[in-house]
Amino acid sequence: MIIPHVRPWGGPPADLHLDGARIAAVTPSAAAGPAPLALPGFVEGHCHLDKTLWGRPWWPNAIGPEREDRIRNEQAMRGPLGLDPFREGLALCEAHLRAGTTRLRSHVDVDGESRLRHVEALLRLREHLAGRLEIQLVAFPQDGILRTPGAREWLEEALRLGCDAVGGMDPSVVDRDPVRHLDAVFALAERHGRPVDIHLHEPGELGAFALELVAERTRALGLAGRVVVSHAFALGDVPPARAEALLALLAEAGVALCSTAAPSRPVPPLRRARALGVTLFAGNDNIRDMWAPYGQPDMRERARLMGLKHELRRDEEVAWALATVTTEAARGCGFGAYGLEPGARADIVLLDAATLAEAVVSPRAPLRVVSHGREVQTSW
Amino acid sequence: MIIPHVRPWGGPPADLHLDGARIAAVTPSAAAGPAPLALPGFVEGHCHLDKTLWGRPWWPNAIGPEREDRIRNEQAMRGPLGLDPFREGLALCEAHLRAGTTRLRSHVDVDGESRLRHVEALLRLREHLAGRLEIQLVAFPQDGILRTPGAREWLEEALRLGCDAVGGMDPSVVDRDPVRHLDAVFALAERHGRPVDIHLHEPGELGAFALELVAERTRALGLAGRVVVSHAFALGDVPPARAEALLALLAEAGVALCSTAAPSRPVPPLRRARALGVTLFAGNDNIRDMWAPYGQPDMRERARLMGLKHELRRDEEVAWALATVTTEAARGCGFGAYGLEPGARADIVLLDAATLAEAVVSPRAPLRVVSHGREVQTSW
Repeated sequence: MIIPHVRPWGGPPADLHLDGARIAAVTPSAAAGPAPLALPGFVEGHCHLDKTLWGRPWWPNAIGPEREDRIRNEQAMRGPLGLDPFREGLALCEAHLRAGTTRLRSHVDVDGESRLRHVEALLRLREHLAGRLEIQLVAFPQDGILRTPGAREWLEEALRLGCDAVGGMDPSVVDRDPVRHLDAVFALAERHGRPVDIHLHEPGELGAFALELVAERTRALGLAGRVVVSHAFALGDVPPARAEALLALLAEAGVALCSTAAPSRPVPPLRRARALGVTLFAGNDNIRDMWAPYGQPDMRERARLMGLKHELRRDEEVAWALATVTTEAARGCGFGAYGLEPGARADIVLLDAATLAEAVVSPRAPLRVVSHGREVQTSW
Repeated sequence: MIIPHVRPWGGPPADLHLDGARIAAVTPSAAAGPAPLALPGFVEGHCHLDKTLWGRPWWPNAIGPEREDRIRNEQAMRGPLGLDPFREGLALCEAHLRAGTTRLRSHVDVDGESRLRHVEALLRLREHLAGRLEIQLVAFPQDGILRTPGAREWLEEALRLGCDAVGGMDPSVVDRDPVRHLDAVFALAERHGRPVDIHLHEPGELGAFALELVAERTRALGLAGRVVVSHAFALGDVPPARAEALLALLAEAGVALCSTAAPSRPVPPLRRARALGVTLFAGNDNIRDMWAPYGQPDMRERARLMGLKHELRRDEEVAWALATVTTEAARGCGFGAYGLEPGARADIVLLDAATLAEAVVSPRAPLRVVSHGREVQTSW
């Protein structure tokens, strides 16, 4: 297959020669006339396929205001609503594919109510979508590890069953013991040789302390490049000089950050993270679920939010927002063979856009999406 | 004309009977089956029709980081780029209409470079769209009043020519004299019997001081309900108790607030404004212009940002976000005959949504838009 006369990353027109699921060669285009912009498939760096209500009738949200209310509501309502992580997750993945997402990292709840039910459903989904959408699953102790009897064993079993990474969750706020929570997470990572991705909503100096603990453990276990902290709101809370020191620490330890660019609160400073060499990538987190009704399975919308959040106005800056859903996200999650060079997997999105910045801000759907060398069909 | 079997504001199915450009009666629907949600036309509370690049080829932004850089760049580039406020403004208005916006407030630059050229172009546009899109024009001293020789006279002339309201701009930061700047604005408002809408980006206590000056002048001149402060970022900067006192002052003086719900910085607290009786409505501000490439002529997208910014999760809260682009915006701007009751102008948007909250979060285009009793056509 040849994808003729496109502009990789907005550069000069080229023909992309595919060999099965790989890009075999990129040659200058001999054709004249306008050529669409070509990007590698987008990367969803953080979502919860097992929480979404995507594709279901509207669910009216009337639950309480605290995070704990949302955790309890979700556990209580899964059964009565008849949610099916495979079915809803598949609907969300198909929408993601149509919008050009070809790699995705999902956390999957491992708690006292779901135990390994969600893990098993999303492992089936990963298998079902193999060769079309690459999925990483993070075994996620939404309800803590220490305070939930059995959680450690379920996490262990989730990794044995095939989860790609170990998750963690607000080690001080949820389990009331940051050291033992993180020790449990990193012990699992070490024993199973898996990367780590920790939800850290903890604010200010409490969250900053957790970041220090994560950096120490990453260094001690030689896990540089294999550890992500998601949200890391603390980096938006502490004074700039303290944030700077923490970012330097994370850069040195090889810890990456995942951000939703939440409009509602300070977030890790993208400009400083870039300057100090910290990989910072984007994820949608909740999409239309019992936590919040917002979100779209569309990484360009998330890149727009990233641009708005960090006031990326100049074209070269808007391209940084695009990087958070492409190259940075592939690096942060460890998705290999990424890009538009020979040898990369043939995940290609064609867009009607003059430049990378226009690709971010234009809401027009992709002209064409190719995943693993195959045309993405609406019927997928 | 009858618009049969719709759910006004998500309520029970009804038929809307139109008499020309008005809603004449609302009667219960006898039909069975699903009915679309009906809302009144959306209100764009703050935009700049004379700045947008909408409909033009992509313009690569490479200008400096300061607000002053953006003001200077804009003045310098209008000529070389061949911008036409009528043409680009019309393209933006047509897109707005298709997305269901039927009332719009635009600021229009009055500065040493444009003088009355933009005012004249947008007055022509207002005339051109009469009976289809209701436009209010605010004569806007983007480059200050005191520091720009002639500005006061051009503003006066803009009002004489037909601008609906008097604008103002960061009275301490731009003109370096908050009292005399605001006195000039309010003197024009008083002399011409026009409402006021002031851009106030000034942060912290500097902006808070300007809010106090605005409230004092609004009270002194009996302008309650006719004064808007746009942005008012200071209300997001000062400590909660101070913000609370300022909101009480604005409520008592009858000063409304317009917000873009900017993801990049603290903004006026919507929950507290509602609780204290301050009208707070939404506007897009810049849409695809030389200031920033973001934004869409779609008030539901702005409502989504409002919901994300203020963490409006429960359905009843998400409906507050919708109010910022409907009822609150009509009240804040003084657009009359607004709503879906008999006597209201027949500006009606039909949406495929179960509830008001779904109307906010779903990106699906309207099923149908009626403005001034007439079907909105794509060819408008």
